[in-house]
Amino acid sequence: MTAQTLILQTGDSVAIALSDLKAGSMIDDLGLAPNSDIPRGHKIALAPHGVGDNLRRYGQVIGQATAPIAPGDHVHSHNLGMADHVAKTDGQQAVKPLAPIQSDRHFLGYHRSDGKVGTRNYIGVLTSVNCSGSVARFIAQAATETGLLDGFPNVDGIVPIVHGTGCGMSAADEGYATLFRTLAGYAQNPNFGGILLVGLGCEVMQVADLVGGRPIRSDGALRYMTIQSEGGTAATVERGLQELRGIAEVANQAQRAPAPLSALTIGMQCGGSDGYSGITANPALGIASDLIVRHGGTTILSETPEIYGAEHLLTARAETPDVADKLLTRIAWWEDYCARNGGEMDNNPSPGNKRGGLTTILEKSLGAVAKSGSAPLRAVYEFGEVIDTNGFVFMDSPGFDPCSVTGQIASGANLIVFTTGRGSVSGYQPVPCVKLATNSEMYRRMQGDMDLNCGDIVSDGVSLEDKGQELLDILINTASGAQTQSEKLGYGGVEFVPWTIGAVM
Amino acid sequence: MTAQTLILQTGDSVAIALSDLKAGSMIDDLGLAPNSDIPRGHKIALAPHGVGDNLRRYGQVIGQATAPIAPGDHVHSHNLGMADHVAKTDGQQAVKPLAPIQSDRHFLGYHRSDGKVGTRNYIGVLTSVNCSGSVARFIAQAATETGLLDGFPNVDGIVPIVHGTGCGMSAADEGYATLFRTLAGYAQNPNFGGILLVGLGCEVMQVADLVGGRPIRSDGALRYMTIQSEGGTAATVERGLQELRGIAEVANQAQRAPAPLSALTIGMQCGGSDGYSGITANPALGIASDLIVRHGGTTILSETPEIYGAEHLLTARAETPDVADKLLTRIAWWEDYCARNGGEMDNNPSPGNKRGGLTTILEKSLGAVAKSGSAPLRAVYEFGEVIDTNGFVFMDSPGFDPCSVTGQIASGANLIVFTTGRGSVSGYQPVPCVKLATNSEMYRRMQGDMDLNCGDIVSDGVSLEDKGQELLDILINTASGAQTQSEKLGYGGVEFVPWTIGAVM
Ligand SMILES: [Ca+2]
Ligand SMILES: [Ca+2]
Ligand SMILES: [Ca+2]
Ligand SMILES: [Ca+2]
Ligand SMILES: [Ca+2]
Repeated sequence: MTAQTLILQTGDSVAIALSDLKAGSMIDDLGLAPNSDIPRGHKIALAPHGVGDNLRRYGQVIGQATAPIAPGDHVHSHNLGMADHVAKTDGQQAVKPLAPIQSDRHFLGYHRSDGKVGTRNYIGVLTSVNCSGSVARFIAQAATETGLLDGFPNVDGIVPIVHGTGCGMSAADEGYATLFRTLAGYAQNPNFGGILLVGLGCEVMQVADLVGGRPIRSDGALRYMTIQSEGGTAATVERGLQELRGIAEVANQAQRAPAPLSALTIGMQCGGSDGYSGITANPALGIASDLIVRHGGTTILSETPEIYGAEHLLTARAETPDVADKLLTRIAWWEDYCARNGGEMDNNPSPGNKRGGLTTILEKSLGAVAKSGSAPLRAVYEFGEVIDTNGFVFMDSPGFDPCSVTGQIASGANLIVFTTGRGSVSGYQPVPCVKLATNSEMYRRMQGDMDLNCGDIVSDGVSLEDKGQELLDILINTASGAQTQSEKLGYGGVEFVPWTIGAVM
Repeated sequence: MTAQTLILQTGDSVAIALSDLKAGSMIDDLGLAPNSDIPRGHKIALAPHGVGDNLRRYGQVIGQATAPIAPGDHVHSHNLGMADHVAKTDGQQAVKPLAPIQSDRHFLGYHRSDGKVGTRNYIGVLTSVNCSGSVARFIAQAATETGLLDGFPNVDGIVPIVHGTGCGMSAADEGYATLFRTLAGYAQNPNFGGILLVGLGCEVMQVADLVGGRPIRSDGALRYMTIQSEGGTAATVERGLQELRGIAEVANQAQRAPAPLSALTIGMQCGGSDGYSGITANPALGIASDLIVRHGGTTILSETPEIYGAEHLLTARAETPDVADKLLTRIAWWEDYCARNGGEMDNNPSPGNKRGGLTTILEKSLGAVAKSGSAPLRAVYEFGEVIDTNGFVFMDSPGFDPCSVTGQIASGANLIVFTTGRGSVSGYQPVPCVKLATNSEMYRRMQGDMDLNCGDIVSDGVSLEDKGQELLDILINTASGAQTQSEKLGYGGVEFVPWTIGAVM
């Protein structure tokens, strides 16, 4: 029998209605009846609460009772509010280290000379500026047509990384610094066995600056050129093919070999979210995230605008005050970023959110934050900053999916997990992206694009624990080379989207 | 014999040194000798000037003498300055209507039902958001692989128009409005015989909004769909192919037929400029622009940051005070845009400019403005705003080439002319782009990318008039179907770059 309600974590104050509940009609799985009609997606109280009592969902405080609440009551704006000190102080004891798991579980990856491990072995044709993007694609296309990789079976393919910026910008501002980190980060991502960097020549983002200073790759598998120095399109394509052969010889030496789960760096995303995201796919991913962290791996939460107003949920989990401070610094930066662009960050549930049953910003953000499970927050990074620790971390980014994923890959992610309710379709070469459907209806309709249905948590009563374990298995298989749906479909050619910050000049 | 100097317009106060000139060494083409050494690219006085006298180059005032100037003097920062009233008031009589040319010169174009004429006949697969970009490319690729256009010989090809935005933005700000104009403008460009619009479904830039309100194409050759409604990638590609067949049947009915030059709308650009840009390719383009205008056609100047500080050069040519006001309003907007992004517009020649012989901002901007010849300024448009007049017009845009061209095509350009000194390589489907080399050295080196050498104005003494006429012939041939170098090379797949304004959320 299909359950009528869902309790997200033992000890929660409320259950979530999985269908419209009728006043007085007994709910078998709870052993109580609603005191009024409760719409699907809304909350029903499990226990009595006095005014000022905290209520919990996902094991986290979502607000305080503003009126007495009895078991069976509909819990929403009329009896649940968010006192200031709830937002600011609750959960200071939330740093709960997770028990490490000693295990011989492993994946088969490409071990790089800097100690990182790739889950794929692509060659990237990276571009400093939009103006070299077509040539990067011509080179990749010519390589395909001439069978350049025929003798290099260990290379997965050649991936042009093209974008719409790199010039018409100041070389002195944070937009430039952010793009620089992004390009340098891609050049170092372990899923690339080698890089050919192509510039035009006269752009603001100079190839010489990108390859100058410290070596961009410790294996030396980086070559570079500019179209203007080579003498135009045809000459650049010709030399590009020569360089690719040299790079392919290096990249082809890599072979999959066992690697511990600590070598996984997983970017977590949600896009096209719906009312199920926060109760199915996101918390299931949170459980998998905790498992990865307990195995010594790294998981990355991002999408700063989606945690805005509930950032204390994360600062409360920060391992040190410095980590919490760094997150708050980013939040303050975002407030300024939006203000100077004539907008504002919205930290209230929208009317649509409220109709769907979300009462407070805490509750709304918990849905997004649920992806990160319960692990302590070890570090906070800027967009595209190279991640140099294990554990659960935060990387600042917009919520815009391709842009956020681009930052995570620049930061070193070798796997992406993406939850979606409406059905987002996308891929992010060179990194595989595992898609989780939040609801069974969309999963059935878009099965060719989805890698795992989490809707059965609601539709078939599958436990979050089981789903988290199932996801971990999929992640290990994917890391070892099993193709995701988006890889099979050929996604990834347009989804490199660096964050445009600042004026386009 | 190669000329040692160049006089840009009859009546100019100065000539430009085409090689390093030695003090006292007679210059045959001028009949005088320099009074001091004058480096290549710098100015030599042709006539005596008293303090306060205006000096002219390109027939335009570039500043006032700040010390007495004798014929043969080096003219630079030591004796030439820019009094405020030069900047603000000179040239108020600069509106000099050009004599119309009655002629039966024509090109062969595709006549559309709205009266516009295309120079190409492509089908566009337009995307509302980055998240549908891969599917747009899958559809175009599947169409190629299945020979979908085999029965439609009048269709030039299928062009996916993909980009990195469309979501993670406010639907209420000017960034959204600008993107909306850009996408709607592409859908209406006469070089498209039909449009398939593909969205994801949950994005901010809704397909329903794009196709709602007034019809986006008067010929009805627009179909649309979203990936989420269709049920994923495979189903969308399949339906996309069906829709493309229907669109191709409409588009295939178009055939090239004679069209007057008044049907040309030419976007003018410079990128990768050098010291020759302002003395060869740009003024040659200016002459062609005047010819197009005299034939009743439209030419578009853009790249607002490059005229900054010398905007009165254009307001002085404005046909009405309203037109001048609209340009000044955009300039004020730009000052705010840069300031709020923590930067500033720089209206002074840089040290490098000065070393190259540019003395004042007037002189520097004249090089960029030279592209626009001498025609009166009839109208000023915002980025991507549909151009609804003939004559010489200004469309506001960044200087960043692909972004500026994107705006011009959205505004209705059916031909692009692009001058370059360093050697920019790019193409802008569905609109052909004619590349002018500013110097012969780069032309020889990158001949496969360039359509016309203007360097021979300096290296071989070709007159600007002759070069302008030669360019007009090329423009007419190109409009009639002759392929540009960038079309032969296959450019245009990555150069659609909408202007990102505002915060990426
Ligand atoms: Ca999200
Ligand atoms: Ca997102
Ligand atoms: Ca599946
Ligand atoms: Ca320019
Ligand atoms: Ca430019």
